Amino acid sequence: MKHPFDRATGLVRQADGAFAGQTDSAYANMVGPFGGITAATLLNAVLLHPARQGDPVALTVNYAGPVVDGAFRIDAVPVRTNRSTQHWSITLSQGDEVATTASAVFALRRDTWATTDAGFPEVPVPADVAATFLSHAPRAWTRNYEMRFVRGLLLDTSKPAEALGSETVLWIRDQPARALDFLSLAAICDAFAPRIMVRRPQRVPAGTVSITVYFHADADLLQTCGDRPVLGVARASHFGRGYHDQLAEVWSDDGRLLATSHQIVYFKE
Amino acid sequence: MKHPFDRATGLVRQADGAFAGQTDSAYANMVGPFGGITAATLLNAVLLHPARQGDPVALTVNYAGPVVDGAFRIDAVPVRTNRSTQHWSITLSQGDEVATTASAVFALRRDTWATTDAGFPEVPVPADVAATFLSHAPRAWTRNYEMRFVRGLLLDTSKPAEALGSETVLWIRDQPARALDFLSLAAICDAFAPRIMVRRPQRVPAGTVSITVYFHADADLLQTCGDRPVLGVARASHFGRGYHDQLAEVWSDDGRLLATSHQIVYFKE
Repeated sequence: MKHPFDRATGLVRQADGAFAGQTDSAYANMVGPFGGITAATLLNAVLLHPARQGDPVALTVNYAGPVVDGAFRIDAVPVRTNRSTQHWSITLSQGDEVATTASAVFALRRDTWATTDAGFPEVPVPADVAATFLSHAPRAWTRNYEMRFVRGLLLDTSKPAEALGSETVLWIRDQPARALDFLSLAAICDAFAPRIMVRRPQRVPAGTVSITVYFHADADLLQTCGDRPVLGVARASHFGRGYHDQLAEVWSDDGRLLATSHQIVYFKE
Repeated sequence: MKHPFDRATGLVRQADGAFAGQTDSAYANMVGPFGGITAATLLNAVLLHPARQGDPVALTVNYAGPVVDGAFRIDAVPVRTNRSTQHWSITLSQGDEVATTASAVFALRRDTWATTDAGFPEVPVPADVAATFLSHAPRAWTRNYEMRFVRGLLLDTSKPAEALGSETVLWIRDQPARALDFLSLAAICDAFAPRIMVRRPQRVPAGTVSITVYFHADADLLQTCGDRPVLGVARASHFGRGYHDQLAEVWSDDGRLLATSHQIVYFKE
């Protein structure tokens, strides 16, 4: 049986070169699908495209309007192909309306000098952190992730507001377990709750407007991750005038930086 | 007389709705124009567009191929306009070739709860930091900036390699002085040298592939900045397999976070 993630991100190529997909209730958010599953599905259109060259290096997804439950169409266009890089423009539409736009950079990667300057945080191993089972969560998509929060819970009213920061650190993996790949890594980059509800534990309308993912891992490194949890770290720099940013890192359990991600989030009040 | 920055980012609307511009030798880089001036020019196409609603919140620019010296065309399309947000797709082309693609989110911003979690670094005031005048710099564009490096010089061989990090902190402003606006702020976000040449002081081929800017400042806040220097902070998380990221913050001299920016940079060796 197909993993729900593969079902939700699955696409069928059409005679005109576009891809047909449909929303999956397993990954529903409050309104429309979870943004991370939309991002992964847009990336999948490039991965499945016959003109694709190399592996993803960068992905930007702009949530221009709501994705309505049901069928959608994805057009992925290789705007420019160079010797080692390839630039894509991607559009998700329903009828005449564009719901999501995206761009992606793919590349043939070579070995170079390498180092990681960001620091892997001191955290307990996943087995020592309680899993939050969200089987009754109002947002269906969260039921597809096993989340083990080290710190930075959503809407944590157990602490005085002054003691709260915007940082979340958690172990996360697909539920049921699924081997990590570029698609699930992209989705995980958008699996953090809006920082506004961590920083100031009040429920407010909020949603990602634009997200960018930089893939530091190549396919070989992802393969070594298997279906073990990855460590997610997210924080914000600034909140104000209706928007806040979010910086995120996703690390393998043996301390390799797999992806960094940035997003701008709309919030009310 | 027009400021060189306004000359370089200037556009003329065409009968078909596109914008015509041309590269300016004052902002030349090693090959083609400085990426920051291209980013600002793409943003300007939206600012000048009659359908534009609100102020910029997010801008992503993908440097798909070289911009050749001379004339170019910019098409800016409002893909979707909602009540408070507007999503744009932007393309810079020369003849039949697309050189640069971009997306932008504009918004009508309202007052909300606000706070800054990122910290303004401890730095001397601009007057106490020596300005690096780059009047003979091989990259012409650097002559248009007054840069005062607090730390993190390009190609600094005065220290042992083990002592070098990837961080640069500098005071920067347009030279000659020019009042800060969304365009110059976008350009400044791309004015940091590739981190690879700061972290490992060797000259290697390197260039930005994709950059994203999140604007935290609104027009009123920018106006209070006048033509005084802003503080730029840039660092990298990871280098490897031909690419590294860069995270940047741009602060007003009185400690307000104006923009955060992220880019992915190609490098060789």
